[in-house]
Amino acid sequence: MALNPPLSRRLRMGIVGGGLGSFIGRVHTMAAGLDHRCTLVAGAFSSDPEKSKKTAPTYGVDESRAYGSYEAMLDAESRLPDDDRVDFISITTPNHTHYEIAKAAVEAGFNVICDKPMTFDLAQAESLLKTVENSDVVFALTHNYTGYPMIRQAREMILAGELGQINAIRSQYIQGWLAEKVEEGDHKQAAWRTDPEKSGAAGAFGDIATHAFNLGRYVTGELPESVSCHLKTFVEGRRLDDYGTAVIRYQNGALGTVTASQISHGRENDFELEVDGSLGSLKWRQESPNEMIVRRNGKPHQIYTRSPGSGFMTTLAEASCRLPAGHPEGFYGAFSNIYAAAFDDIARRAQGLPFERRNTVYPNVYDGVEGMLFIEQCVASHQQNSAWMPLSHPAARR
Amino acid sequence: MALNPPLSRRLRMGIVGGGLGSFIGRVHTMAAGLDHRCTLVAGAFSSDPEKSKKTAPTYGVDESRAYGSYEAMLDAESRLPDDDRVDFISITTPNHTHYEIAKAAVEAGFNVICDKPMTFDLAQAESLLKTVENSDVVFALTHNYTGYPMIRQAREMILAGELGQINAIRSQYIQGWLAEKVEEGDHKQAAWRTDPEKSGAAGAFGDIATHAFNLGRYVTGELPESVSCHLKTFVEGRRLDDYGTAVIRYQNGALGTVTASQISHGRENDFELEVDGSLGSLKWRQESPNEMIVRRNGKPHQIYTRSPGSGFMTTLAEASCRLPAGHPEGFYGAFSNIYAAAFDDIARRAQGLPFERRNTVYPNVYDGVEGMLFIEQCVASHQQNSAWMPLSHPAARR
Amino acid sequence: MALNPPLSRRLRMGIVGGGLGSFIGRVHTMAAGLDHRCTLVAGAFSSDPEKSKKTAPTYGVDESRAYGSYEAMLDAESRLPDDDRVDFISITTPNHTHYEIAKAAVEAGFNVICDKPMTFDLAQAESLLKTVENSDVVFALTHNYTGYPMIRQAREMILAGELGQINAIRSQYIQGWLAEKVEEGDHKQAAWRTDPEKSGAAGAFGDIATHAFNLGRYVTGELPESVSCHLKTFVEGRRLDDYGTAVIRYQNGALGTVTASQISHGRENDFELEVDGSLGSLKWRQESPNEMIVRRNGKPHQIYTRSPGSGFMTTLAEASCRLPAGHPEGFYGAFSNIYAAAFDDIARRAQGLPFERRNTVYPNVYDGVEGMLFIEQCVASHQQNSAWMPLSHPAARR
Amino acid sequence: MALNPPLSRRLRMGIVGGGLGSFIGRVHTMAAGLDHRCTLVAGAFSSDPEKSKKTAPTYGVDESRAYGSYEAMLDAESRLPDDDRVDFISITTPNHTHYEIAKAAVEAGFNVICDKPMTFDLAQAESLLKTVENSDVVFALTHNYTGYPMIRQAREMILAGELGQINAIRSQYIQGWLAEKVEEGDHKQAAWRTDPEKSGAAGAFGDIATHAFNLGRYVTGELPESVSCHLKTFVEGRRLDDYGTAVIRYQNGALGTVTASQISHGRENDFELEVDGSLGSLKWRQESPNEMIVRRNGKPHQIYTRSPGSGFMTTLAEASCRLPAGHPEGFYGAFSNIYAAAFDDIARRAQGLPFERRNTVYPNVYDGVEGMLFIEQCVASHQQNSAWMPLSHPAARR
Repeated sequence: MALNPPLSRRLRMGIVGGGLGSFIGRVHTMAAGLDHRCTLVAGAFSSDPEKSKKTAPTYGVDESRAYGSYEAMLDAESRLPDDDRVDFISITTPNHTHYEIAKAAVEAGFNVICDKPMTFDLAQAESLLKTVENSDVVFALTHNYTGYPMIRQAREMILAGELGQINAIRSQYIQGWLAEKVEEGDHKQAAWRTDPEKSGAAGAFGDIATHAFNLGRYVTGELPESVSCHLKTFVEGRRLDDYGTAVIRYQNGALGTVTASQISHGRENDFELEVDGSLGSLKWRQESPNEMIVRRNGKPHQIYTRSPGSGFMTTLAEASCRLPAGHPEGFYGAFSNIYAAAFDDIARRAQGLPFERRNTVYPNVYDGVEGMLFIEQCVASHQQNSAWMPLSHPAARR
Repeated sequence: MALNPPLSRRLRMGIVGGGLGSFIGRVHTMAAGLDHRCTLVAGAFSSDPEKSKKTAPTYGVDESRAYGSYEAMLDAESRLPDDDRVDFISITTPNHTHYEIAKAAVEAGFNVICDKPMTFDLAQAESLLKTVENSDVVFALTHNYTGYPMIRQAREMILAGELGQINAIRSQYIQGWLAEKVEEGDHKQAAWRTDPEKSGAAGAFGDIATHAFNLGRYVTGELPESVSCHLKTFVEGRRLDDYGTAVIRYQNGALGTVTASQISHGRENDFELEVDGSLGSLKWRQESPNEMIVRRNGKPHQIYTRSPGSGFMTTLAEASCRLPAGHPEGFYGAFSNIYAAAFDDIARRAQGLPFERRNTVYPNVYDGVEGMLFIEQCVASHQQNSAWMPLSHPAARR
Repeated sequence: MALNPPLSRRLRMGIVGGGLGSFIGRVHTMAAGLDHRCTLVAGAFSSDPEKSKKTAPTYGVDESRAYGSYEAMLDAESRLPDDDRVDFISITTPNHTHYEIAKAAVEAGFNVICDKPMTFDLAQAESLLKTVENSDVVFALTHNYTGYPMIRQAREMILAGELGQINAIRSQYIQGWLAEKVEEGDHKQAAWRTDPEKSGAAGAFGDIATHAFNLGRYVTGELPESVSCHLKTFVEGRRLDDYGTAVIRYQNGALGTVTASQISHGRENDFELEVDGSLGSLKWRQESPNEMIVRRNGKPHQIYTRSPGSGFMTTLAEASCRLPAGHPEGFYGAFSNIYAAAFDDIARRAQGLPFERRNTVYPNVYDGVEGMLFIEQCVASHQQNSAWMPLSHPAARR
Repeated sequence: MALNPPLSRRLRMGIVGGGLGSFIGRVHTMAAGLDHRCTLVAGAFSSDPEKSKKTAPTYGVDESRAYGSYEAMLDAESRLPDDDRVDFISITTPNHTHYEIAKAAVEAGFNVICDKPMTFDLAQAESLLKTVENSDVVFALTHNYTGYPMIRQAREMILAGELGQINAIRSQYIQGWLAEKVEEGDHKQAAWRTDPEKSGAAGAFGDIATHAFNLGRYVTGELPESVSCHLKTFVEGRRLDDYGTAVIRYQNGALGTVTASQISHGRENDFELEVDGSLGSLKWRQESPNEMIVRRNGKPHQIYTRSPGSGFMTTLAEASCRLPAGHPEGFYGAFSNIYAAAFDDIARRAQGLPFERRNTVYPNVYDGVEGMLFIEQCVASHQQNSAWMPLSHPAARR
């Protein structure tokens, strides 16, 4: 098994977003290119055609393929010959734009790799799900933390029963960058993320609690049943939550907690996950992603490290490594693993081969629907004094 | 300031509990004796007089003062001359016995140092409060984690405003020793702690979540308003909760979370506390008690270590240290600091000097009442589908 | 300042080495491509032309530019038009081949990025230095650990005097992958690294102690004076050292230690550096590369994290970051920073602009000479019962 | 097995040293008393009789037994009846006084517990060895770090062959408290430790490198053969070394390193030990003493924690625990374990039972001789340009 077998040719990537000063757009391009299986060749980097053109050389992209809108890009690229047209579109713009871009790209037959949360609201997500189901494109959603080798190791160990029955899933996603009202200044990232017109119904919960929820789902495979949530906005005048806690009941009886903060001073991207099973427990921290601690009563604790060739790595986890143990792999590597798996399916589609739609290695449109449901039900629970709200969706991956 | 100034003489300690195989009883005696200010001279170590006598030499106690019941001890010691009688009684038996022992000891005029939770239920706690208020004895409750120097540093820094307005208080107290049904075997600790007749209305929440709640209160001084709780019993056939999560609204608008587990494999006594303020955040872990991390946006993170003489320790925190930096102090040291502060008041009382009753350095009967309220309201909230229950008490320390 | 400003066009990379199963060759290509400033277009991936051709598609390289020898590559590429020819050659083959490849490439006018140690012995290194000095090419040496942002932060803080006078430089580079005689099996990496015909006079000391020595030099800028060394070969039958310790006297009076091991079970790439100055000390660990601890008596310890925009990062360190704080950057990022700085000079050369030759941002041929001197004097000291051997070289960067 | 079985009565302790402001004296008394097996009843706390009397109540000692000199104490206590006289003398004064006090105490028939280094020089140590051998007293030396449970676990695992053949023993003992010339001020600890008249031939090497050497010896049992050493005095005007590195050849072929510093800013008592064997490696840090990492190629790393009852602790290690896992034990606990084992032998002697003289659980006079040899040979090697000096002694424990 390999996540990055050679393709018959380098794929051609187009991007929406990624303009100068962008964070996540640039990450997408680096992640996509890491394995030499893809080259960025086109971009609607900005809605300002001049800015888009100025951005192009920072990616080594020819100005002729720097577009001023996603519509222009889809239109122009659709008309290029097969051996020049982009193979897929990455969507890295603010949340409120995902839906229309993704829908248009899918309908135009392009494979899509979309940033999270998938859409602005659940209704859009369910609509997009239909669009994707009616198409034959590959659709990946960059819940990038699922790309870390040790997360995949956790998943494979849990699904193999090594922790026994899952009882508890605790996740904390703690950041501090919004501890002050930076959205009032010249901070574009902060501005749209705290703006309900662009971010959606939730702030911290839309931006990062969704990752936390998704990771618990990915690692354990347990299906949620209901959620009770309390949100807070600590920075005065901010319009969306910047803190909150959700308690989750899973269908198997497990209890989950998700706490997300963007107001915890000095906390960077401190996302940690703990899972307790009847036979063992595990803990993983995103800021030290190359290791995971597994504990069992009566045994010394075990530190599983990302260590291909060691003999104790699970199949997908090992295939997700690019470097030997002790040579830190980080955020790009994980992100890149989402792309790598999507590329495999893009190649299959290009060859007319069948590929999995729902239980893919990478997060997909189904996960996107479930993430939007999570956001909406957290907000609804909060508005109803933390009442338990249902959290199961027929589209949930299982 | 010093927590352990020389007393005019060594105090004489009597203990209830602490029999062979006891854990917390022995801790009490070590903690009490660490500074050479106290000697254990009497004990109702067991309700079996023979066992009590057998235990005595393991403490260097004369058999003549090894009693078979607390009543016998109170009676005999009361009749001893002033310069021989015990100065205080430590209560280290299971929860359901605390009330009657404490009440009797207080009424007999003995100072009391009582293990937590203070009583079996809130009604007992409120009754005991009256008894103590009607007496002139010193009453300390061993929420021992408040004795750690770095916890006191945290408290003093927060009360001085160094973290600004307090927004969030997260605590996790994670253990694994009850992951299996060990109470069925020969595990006395497990047996009574999982028995509702002895432990009270809650299991993990009575045993350890109370510590977590108390520590948040101690460190921040913030008053709670209401609580929403969900409890679980994961080990089949167990009669009390072994896991749970409570969300706490504080009166100042802060949001708190307390998660307690006794079923997380391999987790030892993994109690951590995080506090977010508008100017900074802090994090402390009981298993690495000699350090605390303070973070502020725009500054390198700071590791405050237990380091007397460094110049950056606060007054009470520095007075709570016995060793130079880097020479690990642990559980005894913290426990001992509770005793040390109580000894100061015991000495004042003996000299007829006034002493503080409510805002003492050590946890006291008021904290005990609040702890019992917390347990009862968590159970009540759980029983009412996590409804928010009031959590303020007129006796709360402020 | 930026390490990765847009270039007028993507550079074209050629590689020697990097065949299937290669570790470091693939790292070079990923590092080179990360910022979209370079595309791999040619490779002498293997000395077997068939294997070379088979490797090409794993890099997205056209088979027509997969060569069977470096000579063939230099020859063919030299004859390509300016706008097609590779801009630089990366040398990623075993040590004993570096010299002839590098010399030929430089003489053919190609910029060179060479893996370390630079050559097989000091004589070759000094000869190559002359070749480079007589050319106008850019020559970088991938002492990649100097590319970590926090290492650059350390360097800039130290050179600015923040630690005062440097007294001690301790480095440990501890690995375990050669704890058993894996070179006897099918382990190509192990085979050549333990073979004196390919690796040079030293094993662990050539492979990793050179990194440790180089990093101390880079971070502090202090010039060495002499070295006393003791080497060991613990695995029976191995022909080169797999363990050793060197003590280094620096010209300013500082004392250094370098310990390197390849036989420490389970140790992955555990390379740590500690520097003591008269005003402060620092510690950095390669396996947690995004942070560095700075300590000063009388102050809380400080954790400097890789955190662009925080305000406390130094200029080059900040320019060496691609991601926000808390989003782990790792081995690729650091490696890539070496390439990025070399690309800047390659672009200057292409435009006919002057560029620095000796005190470059990236390690260079001068550092390579000093590294080879270190290896040779360590071996010589060892052979003379750890006698102190001179360790200063006129070509040392200062 | 138990380190602290009940004794027939509490032992009576006398101390030399421990005056107001003393660090290590107070530690001795706390350690001695922790298990209720001993009470401090007498002290030559200071050479100023008034100060000694003033100190007495801070220990709960009656003024009548506060002496102005060790001679006075030995004389007076010798004349007390058997059931009142001190059972042993703890020596906690500066190094240069150990010999005469210890010799006199032993000759007077008192058991002795002596701080390290044992004497001022090797000649004294060898003389004291003879005195002890000619007596029947118990003599313990407080190389207290050997008392940590996880150190004993390490020793027992290594002696049982779990790490295979021992190849490397690395220890670093890094402090910062002498980074400035604090001995010029009112810092008594610093004053005598930097004074060659009181400290002996070495500073940092006498004070802490001896611990590091001793711990390597204790944990592995390997016998040293020779040493090469380089010492430094970084603080201007200081008369003894405050930094140094020794390389040690062991008789079995292992290579050891000891680095000691007292000038590393902000480093507290950062003493770490790493041992590499042919089957595994381990690492332990004094500042996190309750855990030890064991690594083996091809296995997840293992964290052994102090966890009595877990099933994986070795016999002596488990007997050295007082608290359950996760309840931090620290410096006192370890120190106390030295006392506890000595008490066992003191009790045996009192009952006329035979007891081990050389391979005791606690460090003893033989270890003291070897420690003094280490100091002298390190200084000698340093003075001879790091020449290898023999390091084996017939009295070495094996």
